[in-house]
Amino acid sequence: MNFPSKLIEDAVNEISRLPGIGKKTALRLALHLLKQKESVSESLSQAILKMRTEVKYCAVCHNISDAEICGICASNKRDRSIICVVEEIPDVLAIENTAQYNGLYHVLGGVISPMHGVGPDELKIASLMKRIEEADAGVKEVILALPATMEGDTTSFYVTRLLSARGVKVSTIARGIPIGGELEYTDEVTLGRSILTRVNYSAE
Amino acid sequence: MNFPSKLIEDAVNEISRLPGIGKKTALRLALHLLKQKESVSESLSQAILKMRTEVKYCAVCHNISDAEICGICASNKRDRSIICVVEEIPDVLAIENTAQYNGLYHVLGGVISPMHGVGPDELKIASLMKRIEEADAGVKEVILALPATMEGDTTSFYVTRLLSARGVKVSTIARGIPIGGELEYTDEVTLGRSILTRVNYSAE
Repeated sequence: MNFPSKLIEDAVNEISRLPGIGKKTALRLALHLLKQKESVSESLSQAILKMRTEVKYCAVCHNISDAEICGICASNKRDRSIICVVEEIPDVLAIENTAQYNGLYHVLGGVISPMHGVGPDELKIASLMKRIEEADAGVKEVILALPATMEGDTTSFYVTRLLSARGVKVSTIARGIPIGGELEYTDEVTLGRSILTRVNYSAE
Repeated sequence: MNFPSKLIEDAVNEISRLPGIGKKTALRLALHLLKQKESVSESLSQAILKMRTEVKYCAVCHNISDAEICGICASNKRDRSIICVVEEIPDVLAIENTAQYNGLYHVLGGVISPMHGVGPDELKIASLMKRIEEADAGVKEVILALPATMEGDTTSFYVTRLLSARGVKVSTIARGIPIGGELEYTDEVTLGRSILTRVNYSAE
């Protein structure tokens, strides 16, 4: 693409380095910003720079945070005896948005994947073990909320073995047919598993 | 959405003000930037701010430019006797990328649209007329490359009337079946027009 202005070209090149944004979209965004007031571009660029330079990671759970310890770990309204283990930061947001969980989190920063050279030492697993050993009131349960992939299952298996050796109860989030899902269109692995792990209605 | 960090929230809010980018995409982009080196966010925000504050519009053709007069208008390699009239800045880029045109441009900044309160006075039509009157060597032809919509056609009609009164030759880009397009799937208006405005092979 030939750009009529070096300034536009630089901006388009920078914007198109973002994932999922090509040159055409980047140009559209740049031209949109040109049409807006200068303050729009100012606050956008300041917010990005401020976020990148000032954001911290919680020393306990490794979630993003504005302080040394994140709001969830510091809160006295959360149940400190349950820890939910997730792969990445967006998973914490997703679970928080359900408003169904009131415990703490632990962000592993990935899952075990020999294909990509990610072993247990690259993840925050040691930090999870340390956290459980040092917890004042003790940790009653660890919920594994890892992806339902081979890598996720491997990680779940690895973490479960370590935790079981320490006598901590381990659970995993339920796999099955999504709410609103039709049996007919559900893949057979999920459907088969949902039958095997069926929930007893009469006992409830 | 509940954000674990005010800094992230601010950045997500700013990014999601861009057209076509929602909160989820904005969060994905923000987390991507957090994973990259600080220099990536730095150069991105600087490029955006620099573009917005320093970019100029060409005093002749109203295209974006780094100087008072844009590279195309200032070039002595372009044919100054032809002006191509377009709606917006991306149209100039699109035509430049074809490498089939060597004349000058004129960006109207929109098309006549009574529905949206855009009349001829809101567009750079007067500036086009002034340009044609003041051209040293004279303008032989004006090519209208406006969108094939009702508004585009209205604008073409309006500009054609003004130019014809001044004795300037006016042409418009060809409408027809796109290269590689199948007759079967072309809409009947385009197909009908392509028959009416057929091109004589034998005379060529």
